[in-house]
Amino acid sequence: MSHDDCIFCKIIAGDIPSAKVYEDEKVYAFLDISQVTKGHTLVIPKQHTKNIFETPPEVAKELFERIPTIANAIKNTYKPLGMNLLNNNGEAAEQSVFHLHIHLIPRYGDGDGYTPNWKTHQDDYAFDELQQIAKEIEQAIQ
Amino acid sequence: MSHDDCIFCKIIAGDIPSAKVYEDEKVYAFLDISQVTKGHTLVIPKQHTKNIFETPPEVAKELFERIPTIANAIKNTYKPLGMNLLNNNGEAAEQSVFHLHIHLIPRYGDGDGYTPNWKTHQDDYAFDELQQIAKEIEQAIQ
Ligand SMILES: [Zn+2]
Ligand SMILES: [Zn+2]
Repeated sequence: MSHDDCIFCKIIAGDIPSAKVYEDEKVYAFLDISQVTKGHTLVIPKQHTKNIFETPPEVAKELFERIPTIANAIKNTYKPLGMNLLNNNGEAAEQSVFHLHIHLIPRYGDGDGYTPNWKTHQDDYAFDELQQIAKEIEQAIQ
Repeated sequence: MSHDDCIFCKIIAGDIPSAKVYEDEKVYAFLDISQVTKGHTLVIPKQHTKNIFETPPEVAKELFERIPTIANAIKNTYKPLGMNLLNNNGEAAEQSVFHLHIHLIPRYGDGDGYTPNWKTHQDDYAFDELQQIAKEIEQAIQ
């Protein structure tokens, strides 16, 4: 199920070197070369899947099942103050490699390299507008 | 397994109203009242767990299994250009409600409300330093 032109498939296959953190038959984890913070790790399914939209529930399940264990190993090793998990889907969401990956970004305090830039729009929606949005999404769930 | 002082446990129980998107026996999804972007949804396990570190693999698995379906429903409804998944653990990682939750943030282009502030440190690490970090984490995996 690997893709010839996918850098992460090549890492899984061992054709491109990586700093491997974890591997089993379904999942592979390795350090993100950008090391936004120390210990910054990517967790990926071995089965190539482009993004969360195209990921079979079975693959999503197996991927996330491993994450508490890997997150705790990073926590126990580097004693971060916290950790962000991040998954980007689509270029408009800053995805740059098109093989599903979950970033585990340990946090060490302000200025450590990562901060979400987050604008609340709470005042823009009345509760009945939220109910309408929720209903629209709910009706689209198949 | 609910906690008396947890706002998300109260939402699951129906004691606090929410704009519900999805519910089954293990998982609950509802709109984030802050609506960083339109359709911004939180997916949570019904079993109270504080953060990713304290989440049993079984709960993580069941939670993420539902996410492709919910993500696709948001995508099909509002046609975003992309989507970020985000999970914050610890106050230092901007966690504000201490019941595990995954943000699904549809993206509509620059200035839509969300941008990760991401600083690469690729030039700070030689490949053998990455290998050393990976080895330290790998050895901590139990
Ligand atoms: Zn791939
Ligand atoms: Zn709770």
